[in-house]
Parts: sequence; C-alpha cells; structure tokens
Amino acid sequence: MFERVALIGLGLIGSSLSHAMRREGLCRHIAGHAKTAKTRDKAVELGLVDSIHATAKDAVAGADLVILCVPVGANAAVAAEIGPHIAPGAIVTDVGSVKAAVIRDVTPHLPQGVHFVPAHPVAGTEHTGPDSGFAELFDDRWCILTPPAGTNADAVARLKAFWEACGSHVEVMDADHHDLVLAITSHIPHLIAYNIVATAAHLETVTESEVIKFAAGGFRDFTRIAASDPVMWRDVFLNNKQAVLEMLARFNEDLTALQRAIRYGDGEMLLELFTRTRAIRRGIIEAGQETPAPDFGRRGPKAPDGAE
Amino acid sequence: MFERVALIGLGLIGSSLSHAMRREGLCRHIAGHAKTAKTRDKAVELGLVDSIHATAKDAVAGADLVILCVPVGANAAVAAEIGPHIAPGAIVTDVGSVKAAVIRDVTPHLPQGVHFVPAHPVAGTEHTGPDSGFAELFDDRWCILTPPAGTNADAVARLKAFWEACGSHVEVMDADHHDLVLAITSHIPHLIAYNIVATAAHLETVTESEVIKFAAGGFRDFTRIAASDPVMWRDVFLNNKQAVLEMLARFNEDLTALQRAIRYGDGEMLLELFTRTRAIRRGIIEAGQETPAPDFGRRGPKAPDGAE
Repeated sequence: MFERVALIGLGLIGSSLSHAMRREGLCRHIAGHAKTAKTRDKAVELGLVDSIHATAKDAVAGADLVILCVPVGANAAVAAEIGPHIAPGAIVTDVGSVKAAVIRDVTPHLPQGVHFVPAHPVAGTEHTGPDSGFAELFDDRWCILTPPAGTNADAVARLKAFWEACGSHVEVMDADHHDLVLAITSHIPHLIAYNIVATAAHLETVTESEVIKFAAGGFRDFTRIAASDPVMWRDVFLNNKQAVLEMLARFNEDLTALQRAIRYGDGEMLLELFTRTRAIRRGIIEAGQETPAPDFGRRGPKAPDGAE
Repeated sequence: MFERVALIGLGLIGSSLSHAMRREGLCRHIAGHAKTAKTRDKAVELGLVDSIHATAKDAVAGADLVILCVPVGANAAVAAEIGPHIAPGAIVTDVGSVKAAVIRDVTPHLPQGVHFVPAHPVAGTEHTGPDSGFAELFDDRWCILTPPAGTNADAVARLKAFWEACGSHVEVMDADHHDLVLAITSHIPHLIAYNIVATAAHLETVTESEVIKFAAGGFRDFTRIAASDPVMWRDVFLNNKQAVLEMLARFNEDLTALQRAIRYGDGEMLLELFTRTRAIRRGIIEAGQETPAPDFGRRGPKAPDGAE
C-alpha cells in the first residue's frame, strides 16, 4: 500500500501502528524516529522499525507516508523540522486527539505538493512506551479524518484505506466538530478522572491507604484513565481549550442540579436520571465499542501476571 | 458456621452470598425472600435457596443469621416487619453502602437479645438480579463492619469469620467514618459517572450516535458504573447526604482549579497533577484491588458471548 512509512514517535500509538502494518503487510519499509536513545534502542530490539533515525528529518526522507505520533504540543516543532525534507507527493498525517490545533500547527510548515490529512484513531490504553503497542489496538475502533477543505481527495482515500486495513472504521468530519465531540467523549472524562483521583489523594479525613483498599466501590475505574500519559493529556487540554471549557460548563451545570436534588432529597429526579443513563451503555455495547462482561471482564487479582 | 441463614433480597449481593456460602459450606439451610414472584421463582430455579418465602417475616423464622440485601431505603420497613419474628440470639446484618442511616433505620425495630452488626462488602458489578451473582464476587475484596458501641463482641467475631470465609478481608470502623470514606471511593465516582453520561445525552451539538461510536476515547469507562442499579443508588444518595455533599464540594473546588489552569494555559500545573495521579493506581494494583492488564484486560468486541 505504501513503500516507506515514517513513524515519528514510537509510543503506544506508533508502536501499535508498526504491529498493525506488519500484520497486514501495508508497507515495505518502516523508518522510525524517537526522541530518546532508550526508546530508539527498544524499538530496534522489538523489531518495530526497519531503520531507526536519531532525527525526524532523517526518518522522513524518501517516505511516501509520514505519521506524526507525538503529543499534539510537539507537532509544530516536528513539522518545522521535517517540512523541507518530505518527498513531493507524500502524505503526512498524525494521530492527535485534537485536530484544529494540529492543522494550525502543521500546515504552515509543509511544502506545496505534500498532502496533510489529519487523523485521530479513537483507541488507546493507559500504558505508554514502545513496548505497550499491539496490532489489535485499532480493530473495530473508529478513526476520524479531518481533512481541511481543498485536501487532495486521492490522499484522503488512500489514508482511509490505510486505516481500514489497520482494522478501523473511518469517519470524515470537520476538525472543529471533532474537537467538540472528543471533548465530551474523551477529554472531559479524562479531566474528571484526573480530578477525582487528585481530590481523593488530598483529603485530610480519609487516608490514602483507605482510598486504595476500598477502591473496588467504583473509584478504581477512574484511576485507569487517570494513569494515562501526562504529557499527552496536558497538550490535549492546552490545545482544545474552547471546546473543553464549553463541555465542562455543561457538566458543571448538570452536576449542580444533581447536587441540589441530593440536598433537597428529590429521589424521583435521581431515580429518573440514573435509569436513563443505562440506555447509553447498552448502545455502546451494541455498537461493539464495549464488552458486556461484568466489571469489563476484569480478570481477578489472582490471574497470573501478563495473562492475555 | 450457621444453621439457617435468611437472605432478605436476592439481587446481585444476595445471590452472590448464596453461591459463596454454598462454595464454602457455611450453613445448612438458606431461606430466601424476594419482593417479586419473578425473582423468587428464578432463585428457586437457580438453586440459590433451600426454602423460598413470600414474606420477609416468614423467611427469618428460626434463622441464626439474617442478612438484609435490599436497597438501603428499604431497610426500615423490612426491619419493622421482621423484628418480632427473629429468633433470640440471632445475628442480623446488612450489606448496604451507607451505614449510619442503616443503624438509624434498623436498630429501633430489633428486640433485645438480637445482635445487629452492620456490614458493607465493597464489591459489585454493574449487573443486577438473581442471575447476576457469582461466588467469587467477594474474593480478595474488603468487607467493612461498623458495629455501634456496645455490640456483642462474639457476634462481631462470628460475622467477621463469616466474611473471611466468603473470601473477603474485614475491617472494622465507625459508621460515620465509613460513610465519609465510601463517599469519596464509591458514591462520588458513581455520581459523576451518572452525571457525565446524562450530560453527553443532552447535548445539542453532539449526537447520541457520535457519543456511542467514539466512546472508546474514555467515556465508556464511566458508563459501566452509570449502569448500576438506579434504586440502590438513589437510596445511597438520599441516605448519605452530608458526606456526599462534603466530598462533592471538595471535588468541585479542585475541578474549578483545573478549569482555571486550562483557561490560563498553565501547563505546569496540569502536568504535575496528571503525573501524581498515576501513583494511586499503582497502589490499587499492588493492593490486589485492580488488574494491571491494559484496558482492565477487556475482552475485545469479537470475543464470544459469555466467554469467561
């Protein structure tokens, strides 16, 4: 499908893309770059790349597909570095969780004749680094493309086919709409998960040991996404400020109404709301985006380490 | 360990207790009661009980252990009904997620010589009903006993041994402290999960179909606990009002600080907070209360239905 793919960044998404491309035979050569020598060495050891490069600009030379797999705040500098070295006609894409800011940061650095097609695979785990990747990460997940008006249609079609080959469904939408949708389905969930974990850690009346012991009451579900990569998430919030603040205002407004219902003992309001929310989960399970197994099918603490 | 155990309520916890007692041989006879004929029939069909009773007062006759497994708001009426029919010397306990209110509601109805030892197994899934129970639910989880001052020490010791035999670790604490600890580790997580799912369902700018499709970005983790039993959770919030409002105030205060950091682009504050929260998850995994497998070890959507 491609001759030479450059992966700029070899964390969870970059390494998973390598596995998925190998599984499907999507390119002849994977050229990789990571910022640290430790990650580069690990990537070679794991066989993630056919060639490893200490600089991003060396990695992109001769590539017909360049995939930026770095935190969204790093895109501007990477684009400035690689811009002059990208082969004419190549497709450049990214995997960032915000899209308007990425278009703003990357586009100015790319030469004429290079096609930028922003992308966001809505998939991930709480783990990070080159050894956290796996080929199945994108299977049955959605990848959203947000090509600006005027983007080469053939380049969009080729990237769509690439993500479908990686196992994903593909949807094309406007970057601003993407940022709003992801604010509520991903960014606000992460923000409130980080927040409640931090709140629990700061209480004077409840010890950290108690929080840990009794986490099975619900708290532990939040700690998973609150263990996600801190740099990646800092960059998401700094680069999707408007949509996040808008959705947060809605969340707060609704939470205030719930708080008031509790204060005044309005059981009917609580029951009605708690009943309605079940339907959304059913929809997510039916759409194949979640498992119906109790407790996510969590394996118990007695399961052997590293069991699949 | 006991001759005759009465299970009042045969939902997730009641049915799981039946399986755990059978597994460990903890009693000779399980007498069950559920409010609806449908649940009673199902309980008989599943072999959860040795005798089934249309009224709670019939179920408790002759029992030396009575376990109230009903939503906490139902305890007062059940206690009033069964009080006169409980055998002298019997132990009465419950499984409710709030404890001060349960003590307030149950104690006045119990005769002299009956020992009330309130308990809360911190374990559950998002599923409900007599067919949702399983013997392993309590394995390696914590069960908190909150006996009021003056409770018979032998009764407390017997109930502690009972829960340990069911696979749990047991901690004894004051009811008010329990309600505070669970407010942050369980009640607030459920409240904000219910809230964000409701918020997402109400947006004008993002469709429900988009919320469902792109739930893998983090949102779906919240929908699990927002699919928990609505009546149970209504009762929890109505009966732990003070502690929930206190913890919610702390959560809101911290969230406002995060919101402000986003508005003013304070990346350092965000990075520092997002880094700290990882430690708590590590603690929960090390304490055996969570799985380290990525994504909770979720089985993919392609896994066969009902796979264990």
